[in-house]
Amino acid sequence: MTQATHAEFTKLLQARYGNQSITVEAVNETIATMMNHRSVRAYTDQPIPSDALELMMAAAQSASTSSNLQTWSVVAVTDPESKERLSQFAGNQAWIRNCPVFLVWLADLARMESLGQKRNLPTEGLNYVEMLMMATIDSALAAQNAAIAAESLGLGVVYIGGIRNQPEEVAKELGLPPKIFATFGMCLGYPEPTKLSGIRPRLAQSAILHHEKYDPTAFESAANAYNVVMDEFFKAHSMKPQGEWDAHSLKRVAGPESLTGRDRLATALKNLGFELK
Amino acid sequence: MTQATHAEFTKLLQARYGNQSITVEAVNETIATMMNHRSVRAYTDQPIPSDALELMMAAAQSASTSSNLQTWSVVAVTDPESKERLSQFAGNQAWIRNCPVFLVWLADLARMESLGQKRNLPTEGLNYVEMLMMATIDSALAAQNAAIAAESLGLGVVYIGGIRNQPEEVAKELGLPPKIFATFGMCLGYPEPTKLSGIRPRLAQSAILHHEKYDPTAFESAANAYNVVMDEFFKAHSMKPQGEWDAHSLKRVAGPESLTGRDRLATALKNLGFELK
Repeated sequence: MTQATHAEFTKLLQARYGNQSITVEAVNETIATMMNHRSVRAYTDQPIPSDALELMMAAAQSASTSSNLQTWSVVAVTDPESKERLSQFAGNQAWIRNCPVFLVWLADLARMESLGQKRNLPTEGLNYVEMLMMATIDSALAAQNAAIAAESLGLGVVYIGGIRNQPEEVAKELGLPPKIFATFGMCLGYPEPTKLSGIRPRLAQSAILHHEKYDPTAFESAANAYNVVMDEFFKAHSMKPQGEWDAHSLKRVAGPESLTGRDRLATALKNLGFELK
Repeated sequence: MTQATHAEFTKLLQARYGNQSITVEAVNETIATMMNHRSVRAYTDQPIPSDALELMMAAAQSASTSSNLQTWSVVAVTDPESKERLSQFAGNQAWIRNCPVFLVWLADLARMESLGQKRNLPTEGLNYVEMLMMATIDSALAAQNAAIAAESLGLGVVYIGGIRNQPEEVAKELGLPPKIFATFGMCLGYPEPTKLSGIRPRLAQSAILHHEKYDPTAFESAANAYNVVMDEFFKAHSMKPQGEWDAHSLKRVAGPESLTGRDRLATALKNLGFELK
């Protein structure tokens, strides 16, 4: 890495950790690509080349998958009317309508079930919480590789947790068989450069990385410092947060009414064929 | 990318998709790093530099996190006795004992709960399946960035789903407060070059990438071709698979007894403070 790139990388680290700094010697383009991530919610009109999507999938499929079961799939939606409906199901997020390609990532146990039917072999294990957990993790590992591949190609993404607001409606829209659950969405497009957001700072590493045992006190000092860092970030980017980070975050988890419909996720999963044993 | 690297990349694509081929023009080092992934279960004695772990965490924290709640943590275990016990809890996997650093990735809702107690604000939302799902996904996105960062630095990893075999024992070992769940482990170390496994082929892209709607028939033709590809892979690497890929995979999901203890995951989660509402 050149000296100029090294300086750029140090800036990325400072942006991610606010006024804290980490000294690192071994840096490279791959890590810099990841450090440079920001959610992209505004796109140019440039279409996505088909080889970009192929490369994203090749990266996604290169991620680890439990026991090589490959319990995930993805639906690429470009139809404007379908994107419009999916946007409504996910809390009316405009970027779902406006992105050229909307990817819906799936925890997919239907494929294993269809194999069992074909071979006339039992698949009772699919009815357990564990298999939903496995498929959800598989889908996330794959999606994150796809996201990094996209960003390395100059594309931008934003994850859409709101796709879990109305799981049955999403399943109907995409024609999902039973035992498939849309874990999250991902808007994909070339970033509109004038609307690029800043790199969002995170908690200090001391709050999230524990050594040998989990240390519950590690978070306390970091939380206060982080409130200050986030306050500075919001001011620098002329954003209007709803109070300090911790107060704002607590609103998000206050009760069932703050979960934007997802308080009924267990019921929705059962309706989609997951027995949650 | 140089022509030589382009040729190397084409090989990676062929290894991942067996006898199929994809033509791509836009390739780069970041995507090549991801395509080159294989699980690493044998390591040299070389210790992990502390800046490598810092960079992995910086990459991990650069991943998207739902509503910026950052509901994940990680414990880095190096103590031989602790690794030995964790290995036993996870199906006696030798590489957990033998790797220099064993990372245990956590879905962490305890941090939000402690914030609520400090601020005297409600956190009833944390008791819902949705928040466990969110934290699990957060942990997976972070872990995958860390894995890619590690591989870009010449390190190797293998994910350990077996950490979910005995969740309460793992929680005791790591001193986890309630509302924290170890989603998976990750062995980390420099790969022993003589024991590097081959790149494992995956299903054809046509089986996992759907356009506009989910196509249940897409898998059928791909499955037969994949059995052949995997058979060739096993033969080329002198491995002894337990039958064809689909028969082998079906054994893994046949029933509760094939889930290596994880059929009681719902109960374990409740014991760990997740109400699963």
